[in-house]
Amino acid sequence: MNKEHNPFEPYSGCVVTQDGVFSEAEVGLANRNSGLLLETLALDITPTGAHYLLNHFDVPLIDEGAHSLSFNGSFNTPFNLTMAEIKALPKITMPVTLECAGNGRAGVSPRSYSMPWMYEAVGTSEWTGTPLAPLIGKAKPSADVVEISFHGADYGFDKGCGHFFGRSLTLAQMKELDVLLVYAMNDAPLLPQHGAPLRIVVPGWYGMASVKWLTEITALTNPYDGFQQVRTYQYRESDEDPGRPITTMRIKSLMVPPGVPDWTSRKRYVNTGPTELVGRAWSGAGTPIEKVEVEVSGVWHPANLENSEDRYAWKKWTFDWDATPGAHVLRCRATDAEGNVQPLEPPWDVAGFANNAVQVVHVFVE
Amino acid sequence: MNKEHNPFEPYSGCVVTQDGVFSEAEVGLANRNSGLLLETLALDITPTGAHYLLNHFDVPLIDEGAHSLSFNGSFNTPFNLTMAEIKALPKITMPVTLECAGNGRAGVSPRSYSMPWMYEAVGTSEWTGTPLAPLIGKAKPSADVVEISFHGADYGFDKGCGHFFGRSLTLAQMKELDVLLVYAMNDAPLLPQHGAPLRIVVPGWYGMASVKWLTEITALTNPYDGFQQVRTYQYRESDEDPGRPITTMRIKSLMVPPGVPDWTSRKRYVNTGPTELVGRAWSGAGTPIEKVEVEVSGVWHPANLENSEDRYAWKKWTFDWDATPGAHVLRCRATDAEGNVQPLEPPWDVAGFANNAVQVVHVFVE
Repeated sequence: MNKEHNPFEPYSGCVVTQDGVFSEAEVGLANRNSGLLLETLALDITPTGAHYLLNHFDVPLIDEGAHSLSFNGSFNTPFNLTMAEIKALPKITMPVTLECAGNGRAGVSPRSYSMPWMYEAVGTSEWTGTPLAPLIGKAKPSADVVEISFHGADYGFDKGCGHFFGRSLTLAQMKELDVLLVYAMNDAPLLPQHGAPLRIVVPGWYGMASVKWLTEITALTNPYDGFQQVRTYQYRESDEDPGRPITTMRIKSLMVPPGVPDWTSRKRYVNTGPTELVGRAWSGAGTPIEKVEVEVSGVWHPANLENSEDRYAWKKWTFDWDATPGAHVLRCRATDAEGNVQPLEPPWDVAGFANNAVQVVHVFVE
Repeated sequence: MNKEHNPFEPYSGCVVTQDGVFSEAEVGLANRNSGLLLETLALDITPTGAHYLLNHFDVPLIDEGAHSLSFNGSFNTPFNLTMAEIKALPKITMPVTLECAGNGRAGVSPRSYSMPWMYEAVGTSEWTGTPLAPLIGKAKPSADVVEISFHGADYGFDKGCGHFFGRSLTLAQMKELDVLLVYAMNDAPLLPQHGAPLRIVVPGWYGMASVKWLTEITALTNPYDGFQQVRTYQYRESDEDPGRPITTMRIKSLMVPPGVPDWTSRKRYVNTGPTELVGRAWSGAGTPIEKVEVEVSGVWHPANLENSEDRYAWKKWTFDWDATPGAHVLRCRATDAEGNVQPLEPPWDVAGFANNAVQVVHVFVE
């Protein structure tokens, strides 16, 4: 199949959007991909199946028994591993918060034509697998290697370009990051839609780095130029901007919308009186979350932030609100130890990436 | 809280929609609820987390140890059961296909303002629990009982009316149907978003009947008038039509879209030559699926239909297609033993319920 031929209209990119109005293709993506149910932010670990899911192409249905992972390219001692061999390696489990780089896209104006996430493309799971670094060491990258690339079994077209999903990390990034080769999630085998039988999880980074349905790990002597590395997942001021790579998750916080919802609008009804607001805050940079604040109708208040030993998982926060009758707008905002703070308005990006603006929740108290 | 007061605009109902254009609230519902990944139609059982999910209100996070089910109302011997008591009862597991009554709503013109499903609100799971009929028998409905109602712990507002989700079945329906009191799904504990710790599954009926987060089963001497029984889930020709209750799933079939997708449009690229088309067909009426046909660019062909002993689960079908270069439109259509057949165009309903029109898949072969 000709990889650059696209007989269809250019659905990807360059499509005019209108704020607050969405196309059938965007809704199709929203029906297919799935977001966190915000009320499950009350839990440390997102229930299986409620973790956000963003898959570019179709889910490959892979026979685990026949699957193997190839370490190839410029390794001095390349090898293959079966799933049984990978599962026999030293095993660790860690809670990791993953967020889609496109989370919040629907809030960036003008909107980019893609999956129209609002707040819900995030989740925290217990991921089980084996650390990747020792395996890279065993394969011995040759002296001129600059990057390691990761390739999935998922194939499709974007902007007329056919490709397997692939991403890379530099050798320096590989040393800094605790990349895990993962085959289980929440103490159960990885689900097909989350990358079964094998994926990586790159803690601290937006989700695009955590390649699913992993087939190959390749040592490269030149920077990786795969579609998902250079043509998407770049911060761009305009369509002409060559871009700067998207890496770690920006500081962010979310709350469980309090009270009960209206079915279609999801606006909230809260009873008058004490209400505990609960939420989570996270950052990919490794800098500790220092504070979370909650705004009630224009006044910011400090929230209680729970301690946690889990470096890569979101932190719980709570705030005791004495709800008074009337309409209120609630917002929450996290700040880290280096002074990074969530913006009140969405940061600009032409593709609507990494919108970490504060969440806005409309409630009516009576 | 005043149950009939709605300080918000009337987001539910009476909102003007435009074909092919969707509001932010509709996209919010699509982000929150989640659809089947159509490629998993290749599997008998939908992977956990890939089964469709439609929840009207927030997911209640319930402590199983503290949960009990009350049989109350006009039973002669009312009682409560703890989860441990329910799990000690005779246990069966059965595969059941569930479809949302709103599946296909986005294809009905003019569109009703609600969750904008296209094809993906369906799934098949292995449900484990205990048959409900013996428990109803044990509770002994009094002589004047006409219906049994089922109440969930999920509370919210719709059209300004606050209510717990609830549904009912007549005594005659209870006798005909194999209603199961369910606490496990795909050999694992029920997930919070699928009704943990306890729900019912009503095989053959659209999903609204399978009440989640079950707290009460009530014997009624008058027909149940809960919001979800009388104000929604009714077939209506117009807003003034009092409606006819929605019950069993209409005959329907779907196919795995062949080839590989374009990321945003989901249109398909297929290689020239033999391609096996695979799909599923189901009906809630209990009448066997007699045939499935596949249309390729205007010509209908018979598909192969697999035998199955599972009364309530979808049937697999396959069709060997010799794909020829160019653009094609594929459709599939099921017929049952009584001659019920899927329509080529969406059946009219004011709320877009039960659209069982044939699936349309655009492919480009080269």
